[in-house]
Amino acid sequence: MPSNRSPDELPVAAVQFAVGPSKHVNLTRAAELVARAADSGARLVVLPEKFNGFGSPEILRACAEPLESGETVAAMRGWAREHDIFLVGGSITEEHEDGRLTNTSVVFGPEGERLAVYRKIHLFDITVGDEVYRESDVETPGDEIVVVDVDGWSVGISICYDLRFPELYRILMLRGAEVIVVPAAFTLLTGRDHWEVLLRARAVENQCYVVAANECGQRSDGKRTYGRSMVVDPWGTITAQASDGDAVVATRLERSRVDAVRASLPALQHRRESAYVWPEAAVALS
Amino acid sequence: MPSNRSPDELPVAAVQFAVGPSKHVNLTRAAELVARAADSGARLVVLPEKFNGFGSPEILRACAEPLESGETVAAMRGWAREHDIFLVGGSITEEHEDGRLTNTSVVFGPEGERLAVYRKIHLFDITVGDEVYRESDVETPGDEIVVVDVDGWSVGISICYDLRFPELYRILMLRGAEVIVVPAAFTLLTGRDHWEVLLRARAVENQCYVVAANECGQRSDGKRTYGRSMVVDPWGTITAQASDGDAVVATRLERSRVDAVRASLPALQHRRESAYVWPEAAVALS
Repeated sequence: MPSNRSPDELPVAAVQFAVGPSKHVNLTRAAELVARAADSGARLVVLPEKFNGFGSPEILRACAEPLESGETVAAMRGWAREHDIFLVGGSITEEHEDGRLTNTSVVFGPEGERLAVYRKIHLFDITVGDEVYRESDVETPGDEIVVVDVDGWSVGISICYDLRFPELYRILMLRGAEVIVVPAAFTLLTGRDHWEVLLRARAVENQCYVVAANECGQRSDGKRTYGRSMVVDPWGTITAQASDGDAVVATRLERSRVDAVRASLPALQHRRESAYVWPEAAVALS
Repeated sequence: MPSNRSPDELPVAAVQFAVGPSKHVNLTRAAELVARAADSGARLVVLPEKFNGFGSPEILRACAEPLESGETVAAMRGWAREHDIFLVGGSITEEHEDGRLTNTSVVFGPEGERLAVYRKIHLFDITVGDEVYRESDVETPGDEIVVVDVDGWSVGISICYDLRFPELYRILMLRGAEVIVVPAAFTLLTGRDHWEVLLRARAVENQCYVVAANECGQRSDGKRTYGRSMVVDPWGTITAQASDGDAVVATRLERSRVDAVRASLPALQHRRESAYVWPEAAVALS
């Protein structure tokens, strides 16, 4: 019922759950939580990263699907239509015709139409403690930065490890983003020290809302994710947050809040492009 | 006694105090606190922003001085030599030959030699609550990004409001910075919500130390600053922090910590320059 909605407000929800190895189980759980999010009044719903199957490379390959004919894509399309919502389909492992896999977020509109596709630009290859992650062993990165219109709001898309790269968020803001979504599977160890601080910093420095949907719990390969899905406002205040366990984090975004922050503290107009001389070669990394 | 120092460790101190309108009083207080910092073993000492006089435009003009013949510059030179330290002279209001004023940080070496000059690139023109700040009414901005060598450590310079601009810190990191200093006079209202989160984010995303020296207390114009000077390590952990009131925050930086963080979580090597397409015109700000 679009006539009841003000373009100045956008009810949102971030969905958090423990993703397992079974696509069937994950899709069933996601369907329940998306329904709960819609029941809360959300117009924009964000799922976590690789929500239809996460774990070992074998699990990722088993759950991968093409965008054109995949079971998960069909399910998401149905949920968007059924609930009259915009859906950021977290991400799934996308199988391309040439066999490549990517970490791909698909955005659907309330008619079930596909509005945008974002493929994760920064792949997660790290070692923390005794945990090793090698996303690039399985997947190839995307190259395109994506902003999509949701009920008149400009929404920038990012995925998990992208959060460490301020360039991406800066470009999303410069391309008009008032909201940035972050489907994630942030680990317990890095989440404890980096999740909240980076989400809040991205909101503060770009004076936009951040809606972050994380996984929680322990996966079949023993790895734990951090939970604490949250919504951060353009001043950097956490306005809604999940604890541990499956959850729907719902709140309402207000455009007047974006405008007020950007007007009183006009840092976005104080950027000094001419002074930003990017080095040809990075000294630190040579 | 350089022979006793390991290049792998850098003892640092951030000096925090309530800056008033009297240059004489401020310099006396700064001299005491720099001596205390040196006594703690610090090799690099960082003063806060405009530490020789802060307040109304009239106070700033009255305290301004040329770099070549200023009383504050002479004092700083003397402190560096006397204590055998590197000194980031927070900032002062610099008076140029053409009458322009800039917010200028001068770095001295242990022989009293001038090693670097950084002029604040982003000027603070904001309104928060009933407080109005118009730095550009008095000063003109600098254009040059500065990294300086301190006992074999690459130290990037920034000042206060610069903290909101991730581009600057990204470029400092790419130019080799392992430590970034932030002399500041962060206000109570913005400090409460943005000081720690932005300092920690800059450390986490650039995997470098951040040494932030803030003012504290209430100035003669009624404006309050936030205190909480701190040192943040490359993982984003606050390793030393002041409360309110005058303070010297001292700790030891370890290069092995920088190396370990950058090796286990090699995000700096995962930047995707080719994907960072900066818009010609900013949609958000047009």
